[in-house]
Amino acid sequence: MISVIILGAGNIGTHLYKAFKNAENSTVNQWYNRSIKTINKYKNEVDITDDLSQLKEADVYILSVSDEAVAAISKALPFENRLVVHTAGSINIHDLDRKNRRGVFYPVQSFTKDADLDFSNIPICIETLEKPDYHILKSLASGLGGPVKKVNSNQRKVLHLAAVFVNNFSNQMYRIAHEIVESEAAEFDLLKPLIMETARKIQDMSPYMAQTGPAKRNNLKTIKKHLALLENDQHKEIYKLITKSIQDTHGR
Amino acid sequence: MISVIILGAGNIGTHLYKAFKNAENSTVNQWYNRSIKTINKYKNEVDITDDLSQLKEADVYILSVSDEAVAAISKALPFENRLVVHTAGSINIHDLDRKNRRGVFYPVQSFTKDADLDFSNIPICIETLEKPDYHILKSLASGLGGPVKKVNSNQRKVLHLAAVFVNNFSNQMYRIAHEIVESEAAEFDLLKPLIMETARKIQDMSPYMAQTGPAKRNNLKTIKKHLALLENDQHKEIYKLITKSIQDTHGR
Repeated sequence: MISVIILGAGNIGTHLYKAFKNAENSTVNQWYNRSIKTINKYKNEVDITDDLSQLKEADVYILSVSDEAVAAISKALPFENRLVVHTAGSINIHDLDRKNRRGVFYPVQSFTKDADLDFSNIPICIETLEKPDYHILKSLASGLGGPVKKVNSNQRKVLHLAAVFVNNFSNQMYRIAHEIVESEAAEFDLLKPLIMETARKIQDMSPYMAQTGPAKRNNLKTIKKHLALLENDQHKEIYKLITKSIQDTHGR
Repeated sequence: MISVIILGAGNIGTHLYKAFKNAENSTVNQWYNRSIKTINKYKNEVDITDDLSQLKEADVYILSVSDEAVAAISKALPFENRLVVHTAGSINIHDLDRKNRRGVFYPVQSFTKDADLDFSNIPICIETLEKPDYHILKSLASGLGGPVKKVNSNQRKVLHLAAVFVNNFSNQMYRIAHEIVESEAAEFDLLKPLIMETARKIQDMSPYMAQTGPAKRNNLKTIKKHLALLENDQHKEIYKLITKSIQDTHGR
């Protein structure tokens, strides 16, 4: 049984708390948050605190705080030589204070507080400085049921950046589509099966192979029609730039 | 039973042939293609031809040809006053020759020839000039099992444009992500659950509500880090433009 203490009660912290609490090989010894109010409703199921000096013992301390707070909180911890990990995609492992053993426990997923998440489908990327700590984190991550990967800091940084493209930027494509169809009172719902199919297709085909459409076919007539339809200048600019990117990718 | 004749054997034509053949309320009387070779392997299950003058009778003639060919082929048809429809998102219903009754039968999906498609999940957008023809097409579309929508030409055009955003442009986001992670020998597979979740999330939440990430939070430090990581100038430009678009959408 691996004991953990969660620090932070944002989206990731809250999801991790629930996941570790339910996993068979982990137990949550305590939950820290700067503001006790946020986690007060959990006080009957876990020890809660807003005081770093009251932190108990545990095998792993998980810092799920904002990127900016990682260094300061890790420095403020009132103990040494324990395993302290952060969960941030873009923060270096060396940003953690060196008085403790350091690691990263990065789930590749987008967290929304109220939406339930199935961790058995979320890859966990692990980095440590020492091998024994890697085995602890690997075991902890495996308990959540999803794939576990050893990933170094550079790899984690590009994964975090790439996640912005596949998640935030794709979602913005959906948003722009929403605006476009609403301008003619057409239904965004009609596009939902296509959105699912687009994501499903690359589960077993490369995005390169999966590409279709006027940009890939270099269908200039359709591209011209589309640009004429777009009323928003920013949408026009995005259409042109990504069309160019597709054409470059496919050698047009 | 509604009898159809398919003209064209591209991706849409081939998928529609199989779908109408298997549907309970339709039958395929004939399949025309400019090059008989493409459809020769189907000759034991359907009448095939490469000669417009040999076209039989049917309730509906479905032109699944390239956008550019719609007008010419509809003009070349050797009969009048029959129901002729095209399947193109961006082509006007009036591009069909007026000697026949005209309609549009537009499936909102991206077709790849070899991938099997479940039509029960594909919305069909229908447009006709006459009401009785609408009922024929509605019945024909319903037989495929998916949602059927009456959609006018302007709505269909914006749907086709929006489909490029959610399908081709999202797929290019996946492609860029692929390039980014490969630059550090990280695994694109680690992003696949996030890609599915991003698409799944907007099935019951607006893209506006579903947005997360550094652009929405206006996390300038992370945005700066990401831009510094990007080596490809075009990727940098895309990152900046879509980040700006998200910031504008969310009032930053």
